[in-house]
Amino acid sequence: MKVLLTVAYDGTDFCGYQVQPNLRTVEEELENALYKLLKKETKTVASGRTDSGVHALNQKVHFETDATIPASKYKEALNSLLPSDVKVVSSKKVSDNFNARYSAKTKTYRYSLYFGDFENPMLSRYKTLLKYPLDLEKMKEACKVIEGEHDFKCFLSSGSSVKDTVRTVYSIKMVKRGNLLDFYVKGNGFLYNMVRIIVGSLVAIGEGRLTVLDLETAIKTGDRKLAGKTMPAKGLTLYSVSYK
Amino acid sequence: MKVLLTVAYDGTDFCGYQVQPNLRTVEEELENALYKLLKKETKTVASGRTDSGVHALNQKVHFETDATIPASKYKEALNSLLPSDVKVVSSKKVSDNFNARYSAKTKTYRYSLYFGDFENPMLSRYKTLLKYPLDLEKMKEACKVIEGEHDFKCFLSSGSSVKDTVRTVYSIKMVKRGNLLDFYVKGNGFLYNMVRIIVGSLVAIGEGRLTVLDLETAIKTGDRKLAGKTMPAKGLTLYSVSYK
Repeated sequence: MKVLLTVAYDGTDFCGYQVQPNLRTVEEELENALYKLLKKETKTVASGRTDSGVHALNQKVHFETDATIPASKYKEALNSLLPSDVKVVSSKKVSDNFNARYSAKTKTYRYSLYFGDFENPMLSRYKTLLKYPLDLEKMKEACKVIEGEHDFKCFLSSGSSVKDTVRTVYSIKMVKRGNLLDFYVKGNGFLYNMVRIIVGSLVAIGEGRLTVLDLETAIKTGDRKLAGKTMPAKGLTLYSVSYK
Repeated sequence: MKVLLTVAYDGTDFCGYQVQPNLRTVEEELENALYKLLKKETKTVASGRTDSGVHALNQKVHFETDATIPASKYKEALNSLLPSDVKVVSSKKVSDNFNARYSAKTKTYRYSLYFGDFENPMLSRYKTLLKYPLDLEKMKEACKVIEGEHDFKCFLSSGSSVKDTVRTVYSIKMVKRGNLLDFYVKGNGFLYNMVRIIVGSLVAIGEGRLTVLDLETAIKTGDRKLAGKTMPAKGLTLYSVSYK
């Protein structure tokens, strides 16, 4: 049987999603809990990795098992074995040809900012501080430039070895509430650090340090140096993954 | 000069506000930072203590000093010396007869709940999980019973030695947004654990385990056993303190 888990985690104390020797990762915690439950090593496949410090509300993870536990029961069984910073939101049976990574159609990330003049302890765990007001109208213009299918090489962190840098960004939504500002970025897939660089570029435009034209040039030329800086991991959350 | 600080803290990793030997407290962190800045032991006076695990958005703390630093500069100076889970929101000069504790007129606490069927890592640091829906109309009725000047002995945790248990609760507001429910409880002062027991009683009424009449009896008789249970500390935040 193939089981699909929806998983939420607070990424603060994890060295990212993917297993790494001697480091605490979400994948390892999940596979440890599965091992305790099933008394058998069980490989998991996630929709994609998330970086060190990045959170998730609805990460998707599948695994195959010959155990007879009903798929819906994995939620409660695993939650009793998992640490408090990673939990299963839901579990269900999926067809054998389903793959959490390759069947994914869209992913939505949320990036959260707050405005203020000091690092507020009650906000700063999940949100990035901004000290200056932003020109939201300019930023909305910039969103339109990013939306669509483009070669997003300019939003790719140096050091990545990925070849194909063409992706589609379906939408970027900004939601402002009081001194909080959230971005919802939906695409068919993202390059390494891409969402954090998109938000960094939008913020630079909102602060007037970059123009919409600069951003167009960055996308056209694929020059990472023309785009904004990479925003901190803590403000980023894998918000949802959709499947065919 | 007397300086008034507004202080925010994430109470998770503190053993409460008040200094205790060999335990990490907010007060000690503040006084340590003041010592580093002023090279002199400086006593602080807060509007009141908060318990282990309780947070604050606007705790008020005063201190006296003969240093010549302008009052408004303490914010930045202390924030550079404080750990990330306690920070100064603002600092200002107050008159010599001001006292953060004795001049306080009202205090407002917020208690935060979320509805779900598992401990969500992205919510559970600052909010308490509720697994069952609540009858909000019944709870609003119950709020009316609590509001006003009463002997609140029934909301006093056993073990407290306080004599005068008469307090005034000015208002209890409930704000529901999606699967989140916040209570704002405003009063002239609160007994030990009082807000957490008020919310525990309201939740018991919302779940149908307690009636509004039971609550009236609890208040009339002062019987702690007739009121609801004490809710966990992590959902509680000292929201604001007002002065004459």
